[in-house]
Amino acid sequence: MGTFELLAQEAGARRGRLHLAHGAVETPAFMPVGTQGTVKALTPDEVRQVGAQVLLGNTYHLALRPGAARIAALGGLHRFMGWDGGILTDSGGFQVFSLDHLVRVTDEGATFRSHLDGSEQRFTPESVMTIQRQLGSDIAMAFDQPVGWPATDAVARAAMDRTHAWARRCLESEPAPGQLRFGIVQGGFDAALRRESAQALAALPFDGFGIGGLSVGEPKALTYALLSAQAAAMPVDRPRYLMGVGTPADFVEAIARGVDLFDCVLPTRIARNGSILTRGGRLNLRNRQFLDDAGPPEESCDCYTCARFTRAYLRHLFMAGEILGHRLASIHNLRMLVRLVDQIRDAIGTGRFSALIGALRQEWAMAPLP
Amino acid sequence: MGTFELLAQEAGARRGRLHLAHGAVETPAFMPVGTQGTVKALTPDEVRQVGAQVLLGNTYHLALRPGAARIAALGGLHRFMGWDGGILTDSGGFQVFSLDHLVRVTDEGATFRSHLDGSEQRFTPESVMTIQRQLGSDIAMAFDQPVGWPATDAVARAAMDRTHAWARRCLESEPAPGQLRFGIVQGGFDAALRRESAQALAALPFDGFGIGGLSVGEPKALTYALLSAQAAAMPVDRPRYLMGVGTPADFVEAIARGVDLFDCVLPTRIARNGSILTRGGRLNLRNRQFLDDAGPPEESCDCYTCARFTRAYLRHLFMAGEILGHRLASIHNLRMLVRLVDQIRDAIGTGRFSALIGALRQEWAMAPLP
Repeated sequence: MGTFELLAQEAGARRGRLHLAHGAVETPAFMPVGTQGTVKALTPDEVRQVGAQVLLGNTYHLALRPGAARIAALGGLHRFMGWDGGILTDSGGFQVFSLDHLVRVTDEGATFRSHLDGSEQRFTPESVMTIQRQLGSDIAMAFDQPVGWPATDAVARAAMDRTHAWARRCLESEPAPGQLRFGIVQGGFDAALRRESAQALAALPFDGFGIGGLSVGEPKALTYALLSAQAAAMPVDRPRYLMGVGTPADFVEAIARGVDLFDCVLPTRIARNGSILTRGGRLNLRNRQFLDDAGPPEESCDCYTCARFTRAYLRHLFMAGEILGHRLASIHNLRMLVRLVDQIRDAIGTGRFSALIGALRQEWAMAPLP
Repeated sequence: MGTFELLAQEAGARRGRLHLAHGAVETPAFMPVGTQGTVKALTPDEVRQVGAQVLLGNTYHLALRPGAARIAALGGLHRFMGWDGGILTDSGGFQVFSLDHLVRVTDEGATFRSHLDGSEQRFTPESVMTIQRQLGSDIAMAFDQPVGWPATDAVARAAMDRTHAWARRCLESEPAPGQLRFGIVQGGFDAALRRESAQALAALPFDGFGIGGLSVGEPKALTYALLSAQAAAMPVDRPRYLMGVGTPADFVEAIARGVDLFDCVLPTRIARNGSILTRGGRLNLRNRQFLDDAGPPEESCDCYTCARFTRAYLRHLFMAGEILGHRLASIHNLRMLVRLVDQIRDAIGTGRFSALIGALRQEWAMAPLP
């Protein structure tokens, strides 16, 4: 494949470098979510400033609005949104199969109703790859069928088999120049099935693999157990992306289980409601205790927000319903996660990783899970 | 007074320099509105970047939330909101007398109910000056009583007389260090009364004057006629601030009638709905015609938004309800107005002002009004 360098390993964790058309990405890497062609409330310059290397774009949302052909005509997603770093586009599988208005799914593809106007739409492995070629993302994800929690073995196996068949069809589509293609492993909530899916996809010439269908309602201990089982069955020479699983503690546990990439809407979503992530836990700045707090949102943080504004000011912005509050909290939350992952990455392969992760688990009062 | 230098005059317009505790302001100057301690959707750095010199803060809103004593304890409004340029705070007169829940007004002051929690509140000339001292603004406005359109002579005169009495009481309050105090002229919708108010306040040792109670429903031609009458009766050696009157055309006409300062919520308010100001008029970027428009919002603009993004992208952001659209349009709209005023200021006193204003009137298909 040649696009991924594995630089170091320590206690299950990996440090690497993934070469994309828009630059190299040091892994493990946290990818902020830019669903509709913008990381919510932020400019691309601010996203760059917090240290993000790759963003997530959303095939389902962008295909429906403004349309992938339109974005192609406007120069592709990078140019459209003014972001010159890496972009990974998901395949829309998760969105389509989460919709209230999924009309039907066959081996051919999925028919659903747009959440925007109720119009009938159809995604197939081929159409989803075409959309991602038009968007011009650095990494295109294969079309997959996740299952909800709980799922019977039969349902999980059928969806997995279909996901594998779709994966093969996705590989027959022409990618955009320099575009990598990742398969998505599924397998429901059974470790053996998860391993089987990992092995089946490993036989295909994907540039990397998504781990899909986790953190959809199953107990956290099971998520981690499945992740461990599945990662162990995945090829070491290709990057692994845990899809949409998302607290800081989840990231740490995923890294400890050999994950290289992850995304999460949490930092920007909770920012809207006035919550910030800190190393000591989550703070809701709307709380009265911050009314007169002249300190920065997080003492040790180097972000724009913490350098310039007080907790009292952020609280005021949230109570007054001012957009600037959402912006400033988003900047902080993204920077907090990027720094956390930077610190972990630096530790991997230096003999410091185990001590660091132990300290983090203790800090968050987390027992080490399987 | 020494705080205002009149540098040039041409055809009724004035170019000057107003010295504030937070730096000198070149006039005429447009002041963006930061009602609740933030120019909506923007950071102070962005406000600085569009070229704004002075912001407006709102006594009524900040006194109710988060409270002026709290802001004082946090180091004053400049530090609270992270803005080191000039701040003018209005007195709250306009807000209080516009409230649905004005309880009563006497010579002593006004009692009203907070729009936030219905609690009974009281503003007097003294309390309003105390609040502004606590906020630490560069310019504090006297407490005034505007009247709505239409108003009988008796009503207009009574409110004017009370405004003058309150103005004298405001001057007895101690300002913050370096804080200037502006009186507010009223007089309803009668030119003679407006002149009388200007002359009465001119006799008091204010550092400048606000022109209040205009653009509240009266015909535009009357606004301009009253403005002309009133400005002619105002002292030439002190700055004049037209309060809350607001389209680009209004600014141009106000400058032509000797106004030095003006504010307006329009650029940030219309930005939220997807409208941008251009030299050629207002554009609603939600319009379908911009779906595939790869051009910048305004061709000749030097703002961040126009340098980096297309009309098609901004349209997408507005249709998708993304905050970034509001931000980018606000940046453009503020920059458009600042540049327009910069251009006019540069022309005053060089013999080019009359030609420029003629061209602008023609561009906007405006007849020159009295």
